[in-house]
Amino acid sequence: MIDRRRRFEQAEGLSNWRAKANEIIFGADTFAGKLFDILLIVAILISVAVVMADSVPSLDRRYHLLWLWMERGFTILFTIEYIVRLMSVSRPVRYAFSFYGMVDLLSILPTYLSVLIPGVNSFLVLRILRVLRVFRVLRLMHYIGEAEVMTLAIRQSLRKILVFLYAVLTMVVVFGSLMYVVEGSENGFSSIPKAIYWAIVTLTTVGYGDVVPHTPLGQFIASAVMIMGYAIIAVPTGIYAAEISQVMTTRRDARGCPGCGKTGHDVNAHYCKFCGTSLDPLHQE
Amino acid sequence: MIDRRRRFEQAEGLSNWRAKANEIIFGADTFAGKLFDILLIVAILISVAVVMADSVPSLDRRYHLLWLWMERGFTILFTIEYIVRLMSVSRPVRYAFSFYGMVDLLSILPTYLSVLIPGVNSFLVLRILRVLRVFRVLRLMHYIGEAEVMTLAIRQSLRKILVFLYAVLTMVVVFGSLMYVVEGSENGFSSIPKAIYWAIVTLTTVGYGDVVPHTPLGQFIASAVMIMGYAIIAVPTGIYAAEISQVMTTRRDARGCPGCGKTGHDVNAHYCKFCGTSLDPLHQE
Amino acid sequence: MIDRRRRFEQAEGLSNWRAKANEIIFGADTFAGKLFDILLIVAILISVAVVMADSVPSLDRRYHLLWLWMERGFTILFTIEYIVRLMSVSRPVRYAFSFYGMVDLLSILPTYLSVLIPGVNSFLVLRILRVLRVFRVLRLMHYIGEAEVMTLAIRQSLRKILVFLYAVLTMVVVFGSLMYVVEGSENGFSSIPKAIYWAIVTLTTVGYGDVVPHTPLGQFIASAVMIMGYAIIAVPTGIYAAEISQVMTTRRDARGCPGCGKTGHDVNAHYCKFCGTSLDPLHQE
Amino acid sequence: MIDRRRRFEQAEGLSNWRAKANEIIFGADTFAGKLFDILLIVAILISVAVVMADSVPSLDRRYHLLWLWMERGFTILFTIEYIVRLMSVSRPVRYAFSFYGMVDLLSILPTYLSVLIPGVNSFLVLRILRVLRVFRVLRLMHYIGEAEVMTLAIRQSLRKILVFLYAVLTMVVVFGSLMYVVEGSENGFSSIPKAIYWAIVTLTTVGYGDVVPHTPLGQFIASAVMIMGYAIIAVPTGIYAAEISQVMTTRRDARGCPGCGKTGHDVNAHYCKFCGTSLDPLHQE
Repeated sequence: MIDRRRRFEQAEGLSNWRAKANEIIFGADTFAGKLFDILLIVAILISVAVVMADSVPSLDRRYHLLWLWMERGFTILFTIEYIVRLMSVSRPVRYAFSFYGMVDLLSILPTYLSVLIPGVNSFLVLRILRVLRVFRVLRLMHYIGEAEVMTLAIRQSLRKILVFLYAVLTMVVVFGSLMYVVEGSENGFSSIPKAIYWAIVTLTTVGYGDVVPHTPLGQFIASAVMIMGYAIIAVPTGIYAAEISQVMTTRRDARGCPGCGKTGHDVNAHYCKFCGTSLDPLHQE
Repeated sequence: MIDRRRRFEQAEGLSNWRAKANEIIFGADTFAGKLFDILLIVAILISVAVVMADSVPSLDRRYHLLWLWMERGFTILFTIEYIVRLMSVSRPVRYAFSFYGMVDLLSILPTYLSVLIPGVNSFLVLRILRVLRVFRVLRLMHYIGEAEVMTLAIRQSLRKILVFLYAVLTMVVVFGSLMYVVEGSENGFSSIPKAIYWAIVTLTTVGYGDVVPHTPLGQFIASAVMIMGYAIIAVPTGIYAAEISQVMTTRRDARGCPGCGKTGHDVNAHYCKFCGTSLDPLHQE
Repeated sequence: MIDRRRRFEQAEGLSNWRAKANEIIFGADTFAGKLFDILLIVAILISVAVVMADSVPSLDRRYHLLWLWMERGFTILFTIEYIVRLMSVSRPVRYAFSFYGMVDLLSILPTYLSVLIPGVNSFLVLRILRVLRVFRVLRLMHYIGEAEVMTLAIRQSLRKILVFLYAVLTMVVVFGSLMYVVEGSENGFSSIPKAIYWAIVTLTTVGYGDVVPHTPLGQFIASAVMIMGYAIIAVPTGIYAAEISQVMTTRRDARGCPGCGKTGHDVNAHYCKFCGTSLDPLHQE
Repeated sequence: MIDRRRRFEQAEGLSNWRAKANEIIFGADTFAGKLFDILLIVAILISVAVVMADSVPSLDRRYHLLWLWMERGFTILFTIEYIVRLMSVSRPVRYAFSFYGMVDLLSILPTYLSVLIPGVNSFLVLRILRVLRVFRVLRLMHYIGEAEVMTLAIRQSLRKILVFLYAVLTMVVVFGSLMYVVEGSENGFSSIPKAIYWAIVTLTTVGYGDVVPHTPLGQFIASAVMIMGYAIIAVPTGIYAAEISQVMTTRRDARGCPGCGKTGHDVNAHYCKFCGTSLDPLHQE
């Protein structure tokens, strides 16, 4: 909220059309801003679908030219958008080097390179960069309140999750090495990294079945790893559930009663539930 | 509750037998209504079992005529029920175009079509529509209080779950594309959609094993995706657990305010949060 | 607690040695009772291990006689225990037809039948009944407070879980039938029941990989089922987490303050947290 | 905290350099202590990576000497660290026989043995012990508050988790034996232990697909096991989520009583629940 207002005030300092462009492109409060956001999401999703369709051999052969020209059309569109974005923000350099600025640039670059340098199109890595456009939709989700609550809960539980992940990695290394000794190369556990890959596949309950224990002892250890994975999957869930509960509670905790100073009131509460004083200045008679 | 009473009052405006039929078919308060519901559930479950048995080659050859005539019997039964339903509701058109009305119609239509138009029975899609009958049992579950609490919790956390799902889809697209580049067609990642299918199979910890990474780098990225999936499966669980806790709490503390009659007060509240009236008789000065 | 005291009082009405036997076999308060329980658990676990070892071809050939005589020894032991149990309870018939009474009987019967009727040993089903002994350890876990909390939470959330399971079964039937149409027999979806089996394997994120979608449309639907399974696995977890939280809270909620009547005190609280009155009669000065 | 202070006071009783060494090696409060910890983590992680790389056939052939000398270098480093640790603690014997003391010793021993006794290097089990070094990083995580909260929550819910695991093992034994009878050796269920392995793979939703039901009845039972596993995975999550919520709450409300100094009071408590003193300065009459 504060961030958006600040940005809007900065925009007022800009020339008139730049302020207008800023409002439409970055804002979602006006009709034009909302329309722009919806059109942008549609364009992004179609262009990502084009990149995908382009990779399917049977589709690529038949409609190759269609994908080529659609891609060029979207690239021109997104380039115009990128330039207008750069011009309408008050700090273009900071924008260009931000995460979303980089995504905006990287996802249009490959098409230009393929036109300018003929041979470059064979580099799959470059072409695939266009897929990064999916990230651009995430930017528009910041307006949704739910996303904020979730991001906050994730950020607050990040340290706990990382500690948990290190413990998981330790288990995976120890059990992987153990299975490497027990099963050996003849049963597919050809090296410790491969055995750790197996341990991760098993502990996370993915269970591809490409590497599988064959000896009775190996199957016993594998069973232990599975049950362990089954029991400890609860850990991140517990952390996150507790954290999101707190975030949701904290949200209503914010207002203090002017009468008794106590907090913990619901969002829709008009009167303090402890002393009966009005919480809402509009209702103050 | 309110909905049911309203429906009942509407039914009173109808002719006598239609009111009676409405009470038996749509209600579950009278003995006849409960008996009808139980018989209907049994009939639905048997008829769905017949559709299933009909699809098993070994069973189909031997008992083909049995399935055929049972199916016709059930279809006649459900048709009569459908017509009575249509006649006993006050707004037949609205019912016919509602979700359950469509299900009722679509699940009896295929049998009639197969009798009227001989060749139509070869269209598997049509025949399979009869399976939609399973949805009809869900309608009867609305009477169960537990279902209401769960539906409410799901509805309230729907927006959060959708935001989460979009984030998951973004990850799946990015990691799928990355694996398409790293592993390539020779290892089964023949196109980006196929690679995204792999990413979904992996992130959701399903792990069929039909598409599997073969290069060390691919296995490393796959391990990262698995651990990520393992860590973020906690997110919807956390959301839902927090939401269901709130719904259950809100229900339990259904104290009505003596001043304004509103409910939803906290357990430790002494005063109504809407109008400031004392909730606690001991504190009433 | 109350149940155990009632049983003890009933036991007092019995003859002296029966009361003693009852105390040792059913109770866990005396030293003899605890010792008996531990010895019983050890005997049960070893006898189950013998049944398992008996089924392993390589072990069976070598140590066949050892397993045979160990099994007969355990059967005699468990038979004596069963008879003493029957004699020491006040209502032997009710015990004999209770769940644990049936388990006690069924798990010793096969060995007698194999001795009396020579040919009966070939019936694998009968022999396997001996494995039911594992249930007998569960009986001894009722003394553990943690088990009680968990059983209570499971019992209270049972109805919700059943409603959830029916919804899951509906989804599985609909998606299985859909995949039967889309993929067909040539891709392993040979009948609707088989396709439903696939849907369950997928939705529960087990993912054997024995039945797998091959067409692009099938893989798309499969992806949808997986993500759905991933999102709704949160439902039973949420229900259970909320329920267990409530059970744990209710446990501390039990005591009312003698001064102000308020509840919600911790188990280790000596004074009411609302008015400061002593909660503990031993501390009442 | 208290533990660390006590250790520090003990260290003051030692000679000066030993106290200094103790502070650097065991502490994390001084700059030197922090630097040492970070260098140690880096050294441990690299040395574990060397053990892993050593097991990869393609890498081993090319860089065999590099791994050999890096390993020897790390072993000398860790040996010095181990000796200084032993000398700087006040009770060296107790340290040597503690979990981390054993890990420290066991992870350097194999390299010495391979130099002293030429043939010993062929024993894979011995060489793999060096992987135990990953545990050493866990020791340094005890300084992180998050790890403490998690360990506390795990320790408190351990008994519940164990009760749950026994119930799971009972189910697995019963369903495994059932499937052994239903499917039999010809479908891969060659013995009860193998069938139990299958049941664990299925119930934990790992689903390798190496052992899979082939008969319709077997697939039906398997479906039941899967749905059961899907429904009861909620149990440990619920336990843990409830437990971690309580631990986090207890921590936050660490208000000390002005009368007895004890903490652990609820947020809405006005009086100490241990001695009855008013916690709220506003209520102090």
